[in-house]
Amino acid sequence: MVIKKTNCIGLIIRDITNPYYAGLIRGMEEYISSGEYNYSLIISDMIEPTKNANPYIDNFLERRVDGIATTSDNLSLDYLKLLSKTNITIVFVNSYIEDTTVRIIYIIIDNFKGAYMVTEHLIKLGLKNIPHISADTRNPVVANRLSGFKTAMNDYGVEIKNKNIVPDCDLTPENGYSIASQLFTSKDPPSAIFCINDYTAYGVIDYCFKNNINLPEDVSVAGFDDASFSSLDFVSLTTVKQPIKEIGRTAAEILLDKIKNGEKDKVHKIIEPELVVRKSTGPFKKAGK
Amino acid sequence: MVIKKTNCIGLIIRDITNPYYAGLIRGMEEYISSGEYNYSLIISDMIEPTKNANPYIDNFLERRVDGIATTSDNLSLDYLKLLSKTNITIVFVNSYIEDTTVRIIYIIIDNFKGAYMVTEHLIKLGLKNIPHISADTRNPVVANRLSGFKTAMNDYGVEIKNKNIVPDCDLTPENGYSIASQLFTSKDPPSAIFCINDYTAYGVIDYCFKNNINLPEDVSVAGFDDASFSSLDFVSLTTVKQPIKEIGRTAAEILLDKIKNGEKDKVHKIIEPELVVRKSTGPFKKAGK
Repeated sequence: MVIKKTNCIGLIIRDITNPYYAGLIRGMEEYISSGEYNYSLIISDMIEPTKNANPYIDNFLERRVDGIATTSDNLSLDYLKLLSKTNITIVFVNSYIEDTTVRIIYIIIDNFKGAYMVTEHLIKLGLKNIPHISADTRNPVVANRLSGFKTAMNDYGVEIKNKNIVPDCDLTPENGYSIASQLFTSKDPPSAIFCINDYTAYGVIDYCFKNNINLPEDVSVAGFDDASFSSLDFVSLTTVKQPIKEIGRTAAEILLDKIKNGEKDKVHKIIEPELVVRKSTGPFKKAGK
Repeated sequence: MVIKKTNCIGLIIRDITNPYYAGLIRGMEEYISSGEYNYSLIISDMIEPTKNANPYIDNFLERRVDGIATTSDNLSLDYLKLLSKTNITIVFVNSYIEDTTVRIIYIIIDNFKGAYMVTEHLIKLGLKNIPHISADTRNPVVANRLSGFKTAMNDYGVEIKNKNIVPDCDLTPENGYSIASQLFTSKDPPSAIFCINDYTAYGVIDYCFKNNINLPEDVSVAGFDDASFSSLDFVSLTTVKQPIKEIGRTAAEILLDKIKNGEKDKVHKIIEPELVVRKSTGPFKKAGK
């Protein structure tokens, strides 16, 4: 049986306003549009990332794509099981589903290890009062980062104050800003803040600039992703580098390989994280805080 | 004759890495996905914005979209004439084609006026040595901004030095950085730089931070767009606000109206620019430079 190929891949982006995803798009595009393949990429942005992604996949199927990559794991298991009976290949990128009854293909960074590395870096700077801005922990990526944070704190014998796990950030600068405002006006302001992603950290840094809180003398700020603005000298954010273009390239490679060979065996690819230390973290001016 | 609607709009983005376009995507999405319409949006990113956009439109047509919005004007006239004979509606957003033989639908800011306002603001600060980082002037948007710059300089009797029109920027921070490096190491460093867009200005600011050039005491930097990072306090870039979400909404409105009514009369919608003055511009520390 010959299946008609349409030479088009669909990509679901959780939040197109997060500059981090631009690297993913470029990594995939460069691979699939190269001479060998000549595929094109169409992208869907989820206006509300917390919503179910099924309709976005449905739309791609109506548009006759050969394969789909998704950065959202908000897919129902029933729907995934239905999809696994079709010819369509789905690759989870920076996301995954914890279930052994469906064969999932995913490519993801070691989020636990990355979060552990950031936290360890902050602790070794002598910082102790370290809130972690977290998000919805039903998402396994969020849960893994939180777990890395907690484990590092425990390993180094640093107390995690109750208020220092800030839940349910929506991963935007606006929300980062408002959480920073709460943290810095509390009785016990932080000596470091570990933000779940860079995009949130931009809001925290914005708050600090507006309120003459100097980085890193007054507070260290760290993120996760190494989004494109984090390396600019006026941001200079310590973060965990996700080699996002490479992740995109690899996702595209897996996807096209699966499309070509028609098989759907599971692939779990875990990328090593890399800590990138920049000017936003350093020793606190008052020791021991 | 009843034409089958697919309830899907295609959007061509010149450069998805420019955060400015995220606002356009969100503005369009919010309008077309609202209860009344329930349309979905699929996006194509041009890896090389200077290339011809025809293949991206072809791909959307194969994917059966009802209408297309494009931020690229790199379309051949022959191709546009061919398209005008089909049922597909195309709206140019922040771009247009200068030709009276095809009926073009576009929505665009008054780029001449916006550039004039920025230049006038810099001149009124007492600044004189003002390079304008420009791009490919075959693009009418680029040409209009350059023309606004030149006209303001002439109106206020400020000399435009030959080297102060910097051509062919590729509109990225990397290129902005390298142009800044050339300007500041020249014999006659600038007192202000008017960048053709914010994304380029981020690279100029990055260069200044790395080289201890203070804004605005040592140099004023201005951009164009009001991209999402420009309002953050640690960027604080003076710029021309394009109400991009509103532009996206209006583009979607025009598109859906045309799709619904099946007519293809031309629409030319010109948006008023607004100057946003922030901390990146101010008086030069040495008067009269």
